[in-house]
Amino acid sequence: MTAVTPLSATDRSTVRRGAERARTGRADLYAVLDAGLVGHLGIVLGGAPVVLPTGYGRHGDTLYLHGSTGAATLRAAAVGAPVCFTVTHVDGVVYARSAFHHSMNYRCAVVHGAARPVTDDAERALALEALTEHLAPGSWTATRPPTRRELAATAVLALDLAEASVKVRTGPPGDDEADVAAPGDPDPVWAGVLPVSTVLGRPQPCPLLPPGTPVPPRVTGRRLSPPA
Amino acid sequence: MTAVTPLSATDRSTVRRGAERARTGRADLYAVLDAGLVGHLGIVLGGAPVVLPTGYGRHGDTLYLHGSTGAATLRAAAVGAPVCFTVTHVDGVVYARSAFHHSMNYRCAVVHGAARPVTDDAERALALEALTEHLAPGSWTATRPPTRRELAATAVLALDLAEASVKVRTGPPGDDEADVAAPGDPDPVWAGVLPVSTVLGRPQPCPLLPPGTPVPPRVTGRRLSPPA
Repeated sequence: MTAVTPLSATDRSTVRRGAERARTGRADLYAVLDAGLVGHLGIVLGGAPVVLPTGYGRHGDTLYLHGSTGAATLRAAAVGAPVCFTVTHVDGVVYARSAFHHSMNYRCAVVHGAARPVTDDAERALALEALTEHLAPGSWTATRPPTRRELAATAVLALDLAEASVKVRTGPPGDDEADVAAPGDPDPVWAGVLPVSTVLGRPQPCPLLPPGTPVPPRVTGRRLSPPA
Repeated sequence: MTAVTPLSATDRSTVRRGAERARTGRADLYAVLDAGLVGHLGIVLGGAPVVLPTGYGRHGDTLYLHGSTGAATLRAAAVGAPVCFTVTHVDGVVYARSAFHHSMNYRCAVVHGAARPVTDDAERALALEALTEHLAPGSWTATRPPTRRELAATAVLALDLAEASVKVRTGPPGDDEADVAAPGDPDPVWAGVLPVSTVLGRPQPCPLLPPGTPVPPRVTGRRLSPPA
């Protein structure tokens, strides 16, 4: 992570609620995006929002999305409808001394903009590589290249990481002073953080693999990015 | 989970891409919602979608959301703007023999509708209990009741679980037959599933707790719902 350009602060990308949790470094944005497996793409269809999970890839300051050429959300995004793409990591449940101050620790990146369809063959290849490698590092070179038919069935969109916000909550609950037990209180309400994390399990080979096929290092060595 | 009413199939809640992955039981919807910590709320603000993560609670066929009365998204939702609320669990990375067939195993619920502000005191209490208990089971009764000031600062919205879809992918990759190695192939491309799950860590007490305060069973005994 080398870029240090601060994130934009347009009206809609300005964090208003809990502004003290905003992070403004571009590296913060990259860290949240790079640590995720899926994001939630929002788009307006028929006047109503539609929010669907989808994989993604990042190359520099461009976020790539892809999907079936038949998907209504991607079709709308491809003709310039505004989109919002959000990646969230839950890092903990925050137990407070009041229900009101219960919270979550999390990292969240929200990207606003209009996507553009990627039609150039070279950029499409780069985008599909970024998408594949984000989901499954090492898989792009370990597998055969896409066929013409597969490429024709795949819509690829690019979203500039120009207008984005990052919000992060860490640490203990922010209880009211009056709720924090006085020293000597025999029965204080427990407060603290129950950490939440995402972990990988043991690889499950496809039943169609020849028995004894070794699991490659790209799978056994896979790690999820830890919190920043 | 007792209800068995099938989910609606309105135009926008009909799963089109990967229709074989659609689940139509109401119990499937409950299971996906109940297993999540955050959902992504989509709303249209100024003609553009905004997608933000938020906690939620469920009581029967009503989903409850809450937040600051000052939040622009909640304010828009409170006056009847259409919303979309999506909860996604990633259960695995699906490694295929081609980049094209790489995928994820997941469970996803998408709810469409217009929310209504909850203003009745009794329903507000029920909603806040559902929200608190969803985030932190046992915390509603373990903590003091909300104050009038806290209640006044909290917007509560209800979204009927009337128009919703559930999509689930499980199992190994769906590779093309031609990509599956013939018996005896000395170097088949590995394919299979790398499971992904969400786990809880060791509770971290608030630094302001009296030393030695025991961690209550509502925290130590907390479990996340497993995949259905």
